[in-house]
Amino acid sequence: MAEQITKRSTSYSDWYVDIVLRAQLADYSPVKGSMVIRPRGYALWERMQQALDRMFKETGHSNAYFPLLIPESFLKKEAEHVEGFAPELAVVTHGGGQELEEPLVIRPTSETIIWSMYKKWIQSYRDLPLLINQWANVVRWEKRTRLFLRSTEFLWQEGHTAHETEQEARDETLQMLDVYKRFAEEYMAMPVRTGVKTESEKFAGAVDTYAIEALMQDRRALQAGTSHFLGQNFAKAFDVQYQTREGSLEYVWATSWGVSTRLIGALIMAHSDDSGLVIPPRLAPTEVVLIPIFRNKTKEAVLEAARTLARELRQEFRLELDTDENSSPGWKFAEWEMRGVPIRVELGPRDLENNQVTLVRRDTGEKESVSITAVAGRIRSLLEEIQKNLFDRALAFREENTHRPETWEDMKALFNGTGSDDQAAPGGFALVPWDGDPATEALVKEETKATIRVLPFGNEEEARGKTCVISGKPARHMAVFAKSY
Amino acid sequence: MAEQITKRSTSYSDWYVDIVLRAQLADYSPVKGSMVIRPRGYALWERMQQALDRMFKETGHSNAYFPLLIPESFLKKEAEHVEGFAPELAVVTHGGGQELEEPLVIRPTSETIIWSMYKKWIQSYRDLPLLINQWANVVRWEKRTRLFLRSTEFLWQEGHTAHETEQEARDETLQMLDVYKRFAEEYMAMPVRTGVKTESEKFAGAVDTYAIEALMQDRRALQAGTSHFLGQNFAKAFDVQYQTREGSLEYVWATSWGVSTRLIGALIMAHSDDSGLVIPPRLAPTEVVLIPIFRNKTKEAVLEAARTLARELRQEFRLELDTDENSSPGWKFAEWEMRGVPIRVELGPRDLENNQVTLVRRDTGEKESVSITAVAGRIRSLLEEIQKNLFDRALAFREENTHRPETWEDMKALFNGTGSDDQAAPGGFALVPWDGDPATEALVKEETKATIRVLPFGNEEEARGKTCVISGKPARHMAVFAKSY
Repeated sequence: MAEQITKRSTSYSDWYVDIVLRAQLADYSPVKGSMVIRPRGYALWERMQQALDRMFKETGHSNAYFPLLIPESFLKKEAEHVEGFAPELAVVTHGGGQELEEPLVIRPTSETIIWSMYKKWIQSYRDLPLLINQWANVVRWEKRTRLFLRSTEFLWQEGHTAHETEQEARDETLQMLDVYKRFAEEYMAMPVRTGVKTESEKFAGAVDTYAIEALMQDRRALQAGTSHFLGQNFAKAFDVQYQTREGSLEYVWATSWGVSTRLIGALIMAHSDDSGLVIPPRLAPTEVVLIPIFRNKTKEAVLEAARTLARELRQEFRLELDTDENSSPGWKFAEWEMRGVPIRVELGPRDLENNQVTLVRRDTGEKESVSITAVAGRIRSLLEEIQKNLFDRALAFREENTHRPETWEDMKALFNGTGSDDQAAPGGFALVPWDGDPATEALVKEETKATIRVLPFGNEEEARGKTCVISGKPARHMAVFAKSY
Repeated sequence: MAEQITKRSTSYSDWYVDIVLRAQLADYSPVKGSMVIRPRGYALWERMQQALDRMFKETGHSNAYFPLLIPESFLKKEAEHVEGFAPELAVVTHGGGQELEEPLVIRPTSETIIWSMYKKWIQSYRDLPLLINQWANVVRWEKRTRLFLRSTEFLWQEGHTAHETEQEARDETLQMLDVYKRFAEEYMAMPVRTGVKTESEKFAGAVDTYAIEALMQDRRALQAGTSHFLGQNFAKAFDVQYQTREGSLEYVWATSWGVSTRLIGALIMAHSDDSGLVIPPRLAPTEVVLIPIFRNKTKEAVLEAARTLARELRQEFRLELDTDENSSPGWKFAEWEMRGVPIRVELGPRDLENNQVTLVRRDTGEKESVSITAVAGRIRSLLEEIQKNLFDRALAFREENTHRPETWEDMKALFNGTGSDDQAAPGGFALVPWDGDPATEALVKEETKATIRVLPFGNEEEARGKTCVISGKPARHMAVFAKSY
């Protein structure tokens, strides 16, 4: 048997780390806070990249690459931006054996270096919109790190766009939020809540930050992607003006948006179970594993049939054939379950006699026998069923864990539990009327550790006439509170 | 008319920079020595990546990602490695507002951080071979930089493999050299010489370094990729031993190999001309540009026909349709030539009447009329012809510029010219018998600036009985000398 992992009911965080390490998605590195993404983890990231990159290109964006190192003075040009990022910077002071005249910071995000270039590239409305994305590594000096969820260095994409008008930039911001929502739901099978962040939670330098927020199985929220309307903040900081269609000069309007390797952490926590990783078919580097089962007498016939079937199925599916003779079938079943492959195909001597195979779903464990001639068609439909089931299951879980507490006492009980262990009661989402006062928001955070994840679209209308659950004052917004990663 | 660029005959290096900037492949950044890769340049890199990545995967490699920052002490574990890279390091001394206990260097290459992980992952022969590649950015503090060719930060891939036996590692080293040669010749249409580097030119930490070397139009060589047999150097430095099939413990054998965004520089200098960039079809982000030509009276009919044709051709080709009405056809022709698109399709009112289009090749400028019904087929064959012609042309140029000087005086004249301007006579390749003495190699470098690019495969047999052209002593190798980038 494969080595056991911690059960979710014992410790959700140990379970998470066990999966990351045992499924060989990532490993700790000798550099504090930095992780190594191993081939099985990186293959997942590659599939995410491919899908996202296609969506970015379909919406008119091109990729480019900007420098890793940014003059320290650039960050200081936007006041909120430097205040937000200064505590997290890694600083290069020496290069080529000499002390640098001006220290360089490793990009924690690239607005400043990119807008210093947009200054060169944008003169007229003819140069707009400028729709650029970058796939890159960034470094943020984090004190407490967790594999994939929070690490000193991570991989991400960052879109940076420039527009003629406020409306166009706002439309772009929401368009990219929608791309993220579609990616999360259609590829990751992970339902997300969307909306705008409050002042205290927004990106340092943004006018408005929008986010997609998912619910993990331990009922904590996870911010899975953000899209920022930057107004003219960076255009003013870097003096990027353009000649309008009417001939006047105006500052350019901006957006930025990003998702990172954190999505791999989200994927794990949204779907996996006590047997290991569960990957939605559309993102699975391997969709099907074929395991021939034989003894000495039947070996040749079973292996030959397995190879023939594998050759055929590979024309349509990403398939691995596991013919390793050093491991037992039982060990292999557990191992491929750990790795999250959506469908296992078993082919043994009795299957061979009956001209059939056994299919096993990773998501439910259900088994079925299928005639060899029908297997490709059944795998095709099963992959779709699994993709859909994972989404439906996650959505049902989220709905069960979305609450509308009617009093501040109920809300505190939701997030703090009734006992002393707040790990036991992360509480899920609380959708409540809020008075809009940062002091109220701060009180909730202090007393429950829950924060406002988003103010959903249409929240102001919905809040009209309602009373803030926390303060009892008239509500201005409906707010989604949760404890989060 | 589009702005002119410097002619190659006026200044090859100005011509090169003009193309990079005018074709919007890259731009200077505010950080000294770092460049920005613009969308048109990055699209080229993406196509290179796709082809290489497929070749790496076909030969059994997986991608992974290792940390950007490496403890300074790691580099010191391999004596030659640190000696080679120490002068080029960028050093992070502060993180999160505090001075670090141990400085971290930004990876100039990742052998050390990767082998520190291989130590954790490799215990037994069952863990071998380990075949990993990484797509990443690296930083080397260069004093003199040139766009794409030499920059402080660049993008590359680095393969790092671990093997049971010396033979297996040596086979891998040569296999990857062959992958690079095939990529250079089949995709970049750039013929390359292969062979092993001398001691003075090899990678710091390698036992043997192999390289592909191309000849640029100014008759300088360019090292376009390297594949290193690392012996057990890094396994010993990081104490990576494995249990053999026989049960004993042995150090692992290693290779590493890489190509970088430098290839974009090579591509430009191998094929482009005084009208701008020339891109081989297999790497062209846009294979075909369709330019409708019309006046007010014919506008509607021509545009409609162009749109119909574009829709059809896009099913098979990467095509751009240029309907911009602010630029004249002549300006557009020049602009798309500058950008290096292999085929231009012109569609004017007379073409429309005759139910034909005009095709123009970027490589030769030849024009032909083709009936609309035959255009897809003709484009298909023309793309192949252009790909082949670019290779043949570059190969003929290289052969014309490969010399076998018979005396040291002839060899000096080849590289120094007869006048005072050595820029005027970079000389091409000189293939000569060499005595194998580093002092002789150093003398050539001092007197001509030419270095040994490679010792070709089979060079020792070929040198037998010959006399070193430089020293007059018995030759031990045939060596390929050239001035280089």
